[in-house]
Amino acid sequence: MESGKAATIHDVAKRAGVSLSTVSRVLNDYDSINPQTRERVEAAIKELNYEKSKTESPKSVKEKKTVGLILPDILNPFFPLLIKGIEQVSKIHGYHLILCDSENDVPLEQRHIDNLYDRGVDGVILIPSSETTHVENLIESSLPFVFLDRFIDMDDASYVISDNEEGAYQAVKYLLKLGHHSIVNLTGPPELSTERARIAGYKRALDESDVECQEELFVCGNYSLEEAYRAIDELLQKGVRFSAIFATNDMMAFGAKQALEEHNKHIPNDVSLVGYDDILFSSIISLTTVSQPAYEMGRNAMLLLLDLISERISTPQRVVLRPSMVIRGSCQRR
Amino acid sequence: MESGKAATIHDVAKRAGVSLSTVSRVLNDYDSINPQTRERVEAAIKELNYEKSKTESPKSVKEKKTVGLILPDILNPFFPLLIKGIEQVSKIHGYHLILCDSENDVPLEQRHIDNLYDRGVDGVILIPSSETTHVENLIESSLPFVFLDRFIDMDDASYVISDNEEGAYQAVKYLLKLGHHSIVNLTGPPELSTERARIAGYKRALDESDVECQEELFVCGNYSLEEAYRAIDELLQKGVRFSAIFATNDMMAFGAKQALEEHNKHIPNDVSLVGYDDILFSSIISLTTVSQPAYEMGRNAMLLLLDLISERISTPQRVVLRPSMVIRGSCQRR
Repeated sequence: MESGKAATIHDVAKRAGVSLSTVSRVLNDYDSINPQTRERVEAAIKELNYEKSKTESPKSVKEKKTVGLILPDILNPFFPLLIKGIEQVSKIHGYHLILCDSENDVPLEQRHIDNLYDRGVDGVILIPSSETTHVENLIESSLPFVFLDRFIDMDDASYVISDNEEGAYQAVKYLLKLGHHSIVNLTGPPELSTERARIAGYKRALDESDVECQEELFVCGNYSLEEAYRAIDELLQKGVRFSAIFATNDMMAFGAKQALEEHNKHIPNDVSLVGYDDILFSSIISLTTVSQPAYEMGRNAMLLLLDLISERISTPQRVVLRPSMVIRGSCQRR
Repeated sequence: MESGKAATIHDVAKRAGVSLSTVSRVLNDYDSINPQTRERVEAAIKELNYEKSKTESPKSVKEKKTVGLILPDILNPFFPLLIKGIEQVSKIHGYHLILCDSENDVPLEQRHIDNLYDRGVDGVILIPSSETTHVENLIESSLPFVFLDRFIDMDDASYVISDNEEGAYQAVKYLLKLGHHSIVNLTGPPELSTERARIAGYKRALDESDVECQEELFVCGNYSLEEAYRAIDELLQKGVRFSAIFATNDMMAFGAKQALEEHNKHIPNDVSLVGYDDILFSSIISLTTVSQPAYEMGRNAMLLLLDLISERISTPQRVVLRPSMVIRGSCQRR
């Protein structure tokens, strides 16, 4: 070689006058190559002293430290905020991060768990899609895992969550202080750990202020923008009276906003609106919301997983971080 | 067993009076177990006829069909829209999808490619983070791959993109028809294939209408909300005059909106704003934008990858889908 630089597959293709994929097929011993073409490529490889970089030293899969994250809904921008925290710690410790979207589908989630296990990952961070997620395989295989954001109530499991009861309590307390007494609770799936806690926080705040908890003000939006839109639209069509909405995630607050606007309800003049999560887009619509320390949650989950992987800890650890209210312009005094 | 139902690890733990992780440690032959505890667990396993589900039949990694997607920025909600299309086809064909976030970092992207290869995935869909992404290893290893949304100009590569030149042309043509002549082009990284095409579309539209292309109206927001905010803020502080902004993604349109509002510029009265992508949140702020057929792009990329995996096709395929304008309320006649 003239330049002293190692030859690349591009150099080989050029010298042999063939395409890259032809060189690739020769390198990987495909049968369907014209013998003359094969010869030409082999000659070019020899002349250029080309060395195939990858297959020369096939790395053991175990050498590559990798953890998997299973999340329930790739469309919800809250989860990428958690991912950013996980990535920060992963990078420092030389771990790869593989993401799997369970699409709120328990059987798919199960298959993701099995697939990650079979591919030899060192540990798993799991945001369960449902209460019925099975983690038996993880436990049986002794693969270290940590619940993040949501957890399934069981012995022996470590988790990192934020204090959802407290966050919801603060949000509803704030609305009560502004004089609102008919506050819609726009909830996610009520069986999830996050949601049970947020509903409890809502009820505690009302209780403390001796405000009656009205059954008709509980509507489920399943953490989805579209379903929240439908739920609030239906409430308005039925003529149910309320002056505020507490949506237990920001996605649903966006859906509620859309429904309110279509019914010519102005935020905050007609209806006050509080969300939960503080995703990237919430500041743009000036949404008052409960900010979860998502980055810190992700960081802590990964640190905890590393401790489990290295067996520095064996007893389950439970980390509960504190959320905080971010007051913007979507609420006003009644 | 009384019930005929297979015993679970929970049943064993209960019978032996130990925790789940203790059963797990026994099952996986850990040394650090108290011999009496081990005996108790082993007795329970025998009594309950418990069979360990996972390690009994360790599946070959190759049996699990898996493809990897490497995307440049998990915080941009455009990419999950592509993922949804990929997921739809993956599921039908029994493939697992593994996601990797390259965080716009070429060396990290390279490590993701190598890691996916080492873990035996069947193919890779790549949204390159930069023009300098190296795909030599993919080519050398003959691992099937498809570029999605963005591509690197090279022989032999298959890709699925949308017609970015046409999309930008339509957007700018629309603004010109509304009487705008000073249109800011808020761009992403100008070396990306998507961006080169969108800038070309902007210029073609101006050209056709004999409107001069002003250098000072090109500002780069790097496809990021924060950087777009800064770029527009700076433009307004410098007193540059313009009546419209064409942002080449919606994330940047959100950032531009924030900067405009802080300078008391009303959309659309003072400034018209057009985005690109049509992410989930754009309708909420009534953003006029260029809608990419993201779901179809994802579907097509996965179908193409399956064809490459099964060797139904060998020559590179190039699929170019058409975007379309979505007119909402963020523009008005000048």
